[in-house]
Amino acid sequence: MTRSARYVGDRRIVVGDADPVPPGPGQVRIDVAYTGICGTDLHIMHGAMDRRVHTPAVIGHEMSGRIAALGAGVTDHAVGDPVTVMPLDWCGNCPACHAGHTHICHRLNFVGIDSAGSMQHSWTVPARILVPLPADLPLRRAALIEPTAVAVHDVRRSRLTAGERSVVIGAGPVGLLIAKVAQTTGATVTVVEIDPDRRAVAAELGIATVDPTDVDVAAHVAEQTGGAGADVVFEVSGSAAGVRTATDLLAVRGRLVVVGIHPAPREVDLHRVFWRELEMIGVRVYQREDYDEAVRLVHEERIPADRLISRVVPLEDAAEAFRALEAGGDVKVLIDCGDPGADA
Amino acid sequence: MTRSARYVGDRRIVVGDADPVPPGPGQVRIDVAYTGICGTDLHIMHGAMDRRVHTPAVIGHEMSGRIAALGAGVTDHAVGDPVTVMPLDWCGNCPACHAGHTHICHRLNFVGIDSAGSMQHSWTVPARILVPLPADLPLRRAALIEPTAVAVHDVRRSRLTAGERSVVIGAGPVGLLIAKVAQTTGATVTVVEIDPDRRAVAAELGIATVDPTDVDVAAHVAEQTGGAGADVVFEVSGSAAGVRTATDLLAVRGRLVVVGIHPAPREVDLHRVFWRELEMIGVRVYQREDYDEAVRLVHEERIPADRLISRVVPLEDAAEAFRALEAGGDVKVLIDCGDPGADA
Repeated sequence: MTRSARYVGDRRIVVGDADPVPPGPGQVRIDVAYTGICGTDLHIMHGAMDRRVHTPAVIGHEMSGRIAALGAGVTDHAVGDPVTVMPLDWCGNCPACHAGHTHICHRLNFVGIDSAGSMQHSWTVPARILVPLPADLPLRRAALIEPTAVAVHDVRRSRLTAGERSVVIGAGPVGLLIAKVAQTTGATVTVVEIDPDRRAVAAELGIATVDPTDVDVAAHVAEQTGGAGADVVFEVSGSAAGVRTATDLLAVRGRLVVVGIHPAPREVDLHRVFWRELEMIGVRVYQREDYDEAVRLVHEERIPADRLISRVVPLEDAAEAFRALEAGGDVKVLIDCGDPGADA
Repeated sequence: MTRSARYVGDRRIVVGDADPVPPGPGQVRIDVAYTGICGTDLHIMHGAMDRRVHTPAVIGHEMSGRIAALGAGVTDHAVGDPVTVMPLDWCGNCPACHAGHTHICHRLNFVGIDSAGSMQHSWTVPARILVPLPADLPLRRAALIEPTAVAVHDVRRSRLTAGERSVVIGAGPVGLLIAKVAQTTGATVTVVEIDPDRRAVAAELGIATVDPTDVDVAAHVAEQTGGAGADVVFEVSGSAAGVRTATDLLAVRGRLVVVGIHPAPREVDLHRVFWRELEMIGVRVYQREDYDEAVRLVHEERIPADRLISRVVPLEDAAEAFRALEAGGDVKVLIDCGDPGADA
């Protein structure tokens, strides 16, 4: 018998007994160490994705753990190996997959949303989604690889390079990770954030911050860039105001990376897009090369994982973990899924 | 004494006498052969750019002609040479110029809008904006090089390649030119246009057309592309509906090129931009390489210039030429500026 946390609808997360699933051919069973709670998990808990998520649902996709059992035919992994997963399972047979964009498969199974996730002690997944971890990487930190891969993908798609000026609008966990990854390119980074607690975290992580309720951000960026504007803006806030600010800030040929989820169409200043030959770039999840880079960055401690993890809660208290995150003040909350082999 | 057509405000174009301007150092005087009327010229005539255009203004920037006189220091041109101009005069000293994007100079002088244009017999310009023409290229056709360069720039920025599927929304002169240039890449092209006359012209030019009032364009494109969608959409209509259609049509990683001028911010489906990792690309005028390619395409008759020129009107009747274009039914209207050396 094992334990799992399940979203049962009605904003409720319930922890209960579950039968471990023996790994079938090509699968592995993982003893999960940690699972981070993502903004999407919160969204699911709020009922916003009830049409897609079938209750009761074990959610969670930011994880680390060790292989506990191998299914038939799995030869390139061993029991005890530390792993995370890249939680994308694509069909291989749609126009997007044929074009090589498997991460945006038309029939993508996002593991942890469209199928069972990692908020449980014992989790069985296809071996093809495993990503091996360095033996000396603490599993607690490794739970941050998935959101780091998001940031790596976003920065890679932005084509940000050394010496360029970038702005990140919104300093939640993804915004902070984008800022840290952007810094690794040699670009300058400024974060725009209205929340003083989030600005304080950013400042502590060595990121320049601006309060848009206090400062004219466009004037500030113009001054910092000799009148040119920003080369890249990451819009992570998901707000109409963020989109407006982004187009205002950008230099000629600047790139606007749309990271935040915008539930409604947004007004975009297309005259400015024309006048400055701006580019807008949509970004969604990651590709394997982003994961490999994320493992490197977390392993080399270029991502301040320990500072970003503000709380670790046992699986039995999963519902509380969600409530804590909702209440604000936290950066990243992990659920300790109780793998006895966890070393961190 | 020479003659010029001038915009004098109040929707009026007046033709009158003018003194030819002797070319100063670094300048040339051109005997203008033909000047095409651009959508922007119509816009100016309607008063929409009165804050930028100082009346009385000789406008016009789509032109061809022959050099009539050289100013001091001009050594790489000769009297009698056939030329057009790339009507951009940049400062060389702003952030955009420093970044190499001189065509989007922060203080750009667009010749024919911000300074005197070519709707006159005799026109004096800096030699640095001249573009030499092949001796055997009829000057009438050469008046189409400027709008062709716009289309070349737009297609180049789209990164359209052989085998890709493109859609052009709006089949005015620029839309038709984009479609013809897009065809030269080896991509397939479909034009979406509500006006039956414009669709008829497109069809005559060998371009597939769709009437969006009759056909569900997204379903049509999906069917044509095995469910994938379009790789590139050129939004040339400048309408809110065009923007909506564009995001609906695009394949995963598709590119939306914003060609049409949108006077007001437009609602953009940023969720779709995220979901399909779409790209939006702003485009403005052209660079010298686009001009060189446009000269080649017009010279090699890969642009059906003679079919696109639907009317040629003498300079004395310039006001009538504007009225004809306004009335609709024309594609490109040229003003014959009366260079006696014109060979077309």
